[in-house]
Amino acid sequence: MNFRMIVHIIGHIIKIEGLLFLVPVITAIVYNEATQGRVYSVIGAALFVFGFLITRKKPKNTILYLKEGCVTTALSWILLSVFGAIPLLLTGEILSFTDAVFEIVSGFTTTGSSILTDVEALSHASLMWRSFTHWVGGMGILIFLLAVIPLTGGSNVNLMKAESPGPQVDKSLPQVKTTALLLYVIYSVLTALEFIILLITKLPVFDAICMTFGTAGTGGFGVLNDSCASYPIASQWVIAIFMILFGINFNVYVMLVFRRFKKAFISEEVWTYLGFIVVAVVIITINILDKTAGFIDALTKSTFSVASTITTTGYANTDFNTWPTIAKVILVFLMFSGACAGSTAGGIKVSRIVIAFKVFRREVNSFLHPREVKTIRMDDQVISDKTVRSVTIYFITYAVIFAFSLFWISFDGHDLVTSFTAIVATFNNIGPGLEMVGPTGNYAFFSTPCKWVLIFDMLAGRLEIFPMLMLFHPSNWRGVLIRHRKGY
Amino acid sequence: MNFRMIVHIIGHIIKIEGLLFLVPVITAIVYNEATQGRVYSVIGAALFVFGFLITRKKPKNTILYLKEGCVTTALSWILLSVFGAIPLLLTGEILSFTDAVFEIVSGFTTTGSSILTDVEALSHASLMWRSFTHWVGGMGILIFLLAVIPLTGGSNVNLMKAESPGPQVDKSLPQVKTTALLLYVIYSVLTALEFIILLITKLPVFDAICMTFGTAGTGGFGVLNDSCASYPIASQWVIAIFMILFGINFNVYVMLVFRRFKKAFISEEVWTYLGFIVVAVVIITINILDKTAGFIDALTKSTFSVASTITTTGYANTDFNTWPTIAKVILVFLMFSGACAGSTAGGIKVSRIVIAFKVFRREVNSFLHPREVKTIRMDDQVISDKTVRSVTIYFITYAVIFAFSLFWISFDGHDLVTSFTAIVATFNNIGPGLEMVGPTGNYAFFSTPCKWVLIFDMLAGRLEIFPMLMLFHPSNWRGVLIRHRKGY
Repeated sequence: MNFRMIVHIIGHIIKIEGLLFLVPVITAIVYNEATQGRVYSVIGAALFVFGFLITRKKPKNTILYLKEGCVTTALSWILLSVFGAIPLLLTGEILSFTDAVFEIVSGFTTTGSSILTDVEALSHASLMWRSFTHWVGGMGILIFLLAVIPLTGGSNVNLMKAESPGPQVDKSLPQVKTTALLLYVIYSVLTALEFIILLITKLPVFDAICMTFGTAGTGGFGVLNDSCASYPIASQWVIAIFMILFGINFNVYVMLVFRRFKKAFISEEVWTYLGFIVVAVVIITINILDKTAGFIDALTKSTFSVASTITTTGYANTDFNTWPTIAKVILVFLMFSGACAGSTAGGIKVSRIVIAFKVFRREVNSFLHPREVKTIRMDDQVISDKTVRSVTIYFITYAVIFAFSLFWISFDGHDLVTSFTAIVATFNNIGPGLEMVGPTGNYAFFSTPCKWVLIFDMLAGRLEIFPMLMLFHPSNWRGVLIRHRKGY
Repeated sequence: MNFRMIVHIIGHIIKIEGLLFLVPVITAIVYNEATQGRVYSVIGAALFVFGFLITRKKPKNTILYLKEGCVTTALSWILLSVFGAIPLLLTGEILSFTDAVFEIVSGFTTTGSSILTDVEALSHASLMWRSFTHWVGGMGILIFLLAVIPLTGGSNVNLMKAESPGPQVDKSLPQVKTTALLLYVIYSVLTALEFIILLITKLPVFDAICMTFGTAGTGGFGVLNDSCASYPIASQWVIAIFMILFGINFNVYVMLVFRRFKKAFISEEVWTYLGFIVVAVVIITINILDKTAGFIDALTKSTFSVASTITTTGYANTDFNTWPTIAKVILVFLMFSGACAGSTAGGIKVSRIVIAFKVFRREVNSFLHPREVKTIRMDDQVISDKTVRSVTIYFITYAVIFAFSLFWISFDGHDLVTSFTAIVATFNNIGPGLEMVGPTGNYAFFSTPCKWVLIFDMLAGRLEIFPMLMLFHPSNWRGVLIRHRKGY
């Protein structure tokens, strides 16, 4: 383990988080919130200085292997969340440490599950900070670091691999710094665009900023207790469309920037993703027609809920808990599928599902025609056996963690649907589930041990499991301890 | 496709089914049920003659490839069920064709889900026939055929592979006929043993026979509306213990017969299976203690329910629907796991779960130590990559069918837990699920299309998916059609 380099990178992360605190500080100044202004500026300054002191000297050996990239990423996200939770505790807006960490992990992982029973009681500064964590977590803090700070050695690719979502055919992009920068530029442009259009639909500035952050990161924290239900219909449609846009693989946007239209438009994953959305909207619209005020209302509610669910955002403009079973089952399916790899969304990712389907088809075929050897292709490229294997392993690991989590939180004794969808909603970074954790509910009622399980699930979901497993794997730390005892 | 050989084998199956009808015929004579006696004897005789005519001439080419073995098996089971359902329709005891097929598919697949709202209204002959289908389906009709009739060619192994459950390290046993015979002998001895002990615990003869058939096949059809709740506690314990015994891999019993004790006792699958049972019983007993009449009552209820669920039998001595969430979640886990491969139980099978865990561990390790190549071992034998692959494919296929089934039956609009556990209970051949399909419920309320989905799931679950997929795969039939048109 290159311990020094890990600490060095984490130092940078802490420094950046100090700077990120400027957003709530400015909000506090605008809205005249003295306590919040003081807390966020003091903590922000402290983090910046602390990070600065750590990063003064760059280690000689800057190489990070994949394993170390994973550990760095997992540790970064945990510390980011813990430090980000402190202001909420100091301002007295959240009273327990567990709840504050839950809320900010939910923010950075773009989950959007909340332990708050009354969101509107929060200060503007803290509401803004909550939503801003979505924006930062959506594209990823390490990718931001890679975009702005030159880190040499093998570290760059491995950090990017550990943080960016989905089984990509080729993650080893030649110029990590350029890619990271380009991703953030596209991300920012789309964000600005949504903000401006939301202003045109007459959303108040503060709401427009927060909702845009939440949409861009596919997070889901709102500023009103009813999420989006009381916003103008036009704003709801804008949010729905941008949720879908942020769920698309960002590689497609990169291709469009480089005018490689043909390559951009053959993405099987994106077409499948859009297909899922259309099918789900059609079925749900028909099924909720008699529960809504006509076709337009049904279409608005179904499109918004489908977009919010498949992109794992978690905004709501209606309580889908009261919908017919078929609509709820479709939403639960979308909760698992998630949107595209390489987007800001969570979940299993459409590409993994496409690959799983192709594996299934190949096996049926190889059973019928044992002598034909077929490769799996996606977007006209052969999917390597390594990728196929990583996908199947992902599913197994996913199932193992899911089962353990469900087992654990069942001890709390809430009903089956609540327990099951609480795991679905946190592990896939969605936010709301069904029943007690539905769109009108929250996560306050869970016991402290259960909240920590859900915190782990949110982090494991966002980082796609392996970095979190690496962090907690004993054999990774045995070596460190031995070296520590030996004094080197 | 060796069409003639497929028809020949199915002819044998039909002939055997005609003979199997002797059991309800004798029951009808004993209990003086004239209508039932007439119906079962006429249909039985007709089947025997029909089967005899088909099998008069043996085809020259007796070779069956795995694909054809699968198709034969799937077709055999479907015809077996359809013919087996006719008497229930003719006696007027079940009024719709769908319901009658559902009931008998549920019988042969050892599921035990019933569409009957009042079991006690059935005649003795039909109750006996229902329970007897469990016994036949438990060990398998084709294995019975292999044990009694000499079939040559490559057919034997492939028929056995298609019908026997679980990913076995080595299914290509040298002497198929001997193995099949030995399995049926062990099966019969254990069955006789349970029957005798149940008589000692003062169960009426008729109940003892039916309950023994249901236990041996891990089916679950009872003869009373309350399943086993009103039986003596001693009988309940005997049934619980025999359920566990029939859930053990029969290879272990074969080893014991050959006095290869060491090999019998190292079975990782069996130890894991017993471990699951102990852990589940301990947790559930503690959790239901305040809902029962003391420790012994809690232990009886939890042991019985755990044994019934993990072996996918489906008998009940209490309504576990009213238990705390943690107990229900554990039962749902056991519904998925099922018992050992090579037993009469359904579900995913403990060995597949053990292999999945080992794959998971290997992948985490290979991530940490990329240069170490580790093989997966079970019972001191190396698990081949082919087996590992077949297990992962099984999981993917399982998930695909599960999702489609759940999607389909959600259109019926029952609550989520009912819809979800109805699929769990039929696909894993258990019987009862939770809520409306719980131990005190039944499957009568589902619409006809949903019942056919559940019928497919029961067959797919019992035959471990692939034979059913093969049967419905268009490319299997394209060739047949072409040859048919060409006249050869």
